[in-house]
Amino acid sequence: MPYVNIKVTNEGVTKEQKQALVAGATELLSRVLGKNPATTIVVIDEVETDNWGIAGELVTERRLRGA
Amino acid sequence: MPYVNIKVTNEGVTKEQKQALVAGATELLSRVLGKNPATTIVVIDEVETDNWGIAGELVTERRLRGA
Amino acid sequence: MPYVNIKVTNEGVTKEQKQALVAGATELLSRVLGKNPATTIVVIDEVETDNWGIAGELVTERRLRGA
Amino acid sequence: MPYVNIKVTNEGVTKEQKQALVAGATELLSRVLGKNPATTIVVIDEVETDNWGIAGELVTERRLRGA
Amino acid sequence: MPYVNIKVTNEGVTKEQKQALVAGATELLSRVLGKNPATTIVVIDEVETDNWGIAGELVTERRLRGA
Amino acid sequence: MPYVNIKVTNEGVTKEQKQALVAGATELLSRVLGKNPATTIVVIDEVETDNWGIAGELVTERRLRGA
Repeated sequence: MPYVNIKVTNEGVTKEQKQALVAGATELLSRVLGKNPATTIVVIDEVETDNWGIAGELVTERRLRGA
Repeated sequence: MPYVNIKVTNEGVTKEQKQALVAGATELLSRVLGKNPATTIVVIDEVETDNWGIAGELVTERRLRGA
Repeated sequence: MPYVNIKVTNEGVTKEQKQALVAGATELLSRVLGKNPATTIVVIDEVETDNWGIAGELVTERRLRGA
Repeated sequence: MPYVNIKVTNEGVTKEQKQALVAGATELLSRVLGKNPATTIVVIDEVETDNWGIAGELVTERRLRGA
Repeated sequence: MPYVNIKVTNEGVTKEQKQALVAGATELLSRVLGKNPATTIVVIDEVETDNWGIAGELVTERRLRGA
Repeated sequence: MPYVNIKVTNEGVTKEQKQALVAGATELLSRVLGKNPATTIVVIDEVETDNWGIAGELVTERRLRGA
């Protein structure tokens, strides 16, 4: 029954990586808290780099600088 | 003033269905808690089936199996 | 499998009202989109009036004015 | 370390406006609470007008009426 | 820079379990996507069983039935 | 109509600081995007330091080390 939300920048996450995130988060909740995997939900949000800011600037700008 | 967020998989929700979700959620908050419909906000997130996991796997895979 | 989050101010919502919100939101998703009630999750957040702002001021202040 | 999420309707927000939102929110947390800008995250969600409801109707409908 | 939110019912999660969830989610993002652990944020929400609904009823009721 | 959510650790935020956050975020949306302050909602979440992780550890532990 847990709900996990993972937000990352939209920079080429593959379907295989999404599968690994879902499997890993579900296993984590099962192992640490004994939660039932059958009802564990994981939602992945891929956020455009223009829409994610850190340190007061857009990730897009940081990427242009190589950060 | 309530805020309602509805997350569903992105599998062909029509504009009419969205309108029904907004009207229904707003009516629910008004009826149960007496909240003012004029300031009730409803946001619908349509999540790709590749980005939604349940039971440790992607919804995309479940749909391929007919689940 | 839908996930619904309802945020309201913490002003005496009873357990019966919470039950009505959960039942109503689950029914709404089933009726409008045909979603399976068995895996529909509803989470209710009760937010302190000091932590909810609208129109640039805290709800606490609005309540003191009778708004 | 704060996390700020800004949800607005998807109606032509420019990159410069997104930069201003990120810079402004980061400055706000630093000025009011002394939070370190280097680890302040801001995520902007642009929500389609078909997916945002207020007062029981979709924003799309309100825009058609000029509201 | 990823942001992970884990929502579980408030049923006695210990500080050691919270530490394990934070460490596990951070490791997951690093291993699968190469994300920098130093800026990965994990927020755990413990939701009262009166405020969490599944299958149209409150978790509190399900627990009373032994579910 | 924008919705802003601010998450910070629960470390003594005063009511005056909450008021400043609400006023500041509302002004920011009005100034940058021309949004109507009357319908701008701001919700502040104060998260326990045991429930906030960064760099793979709980904020509680970091505070004990003086970080």
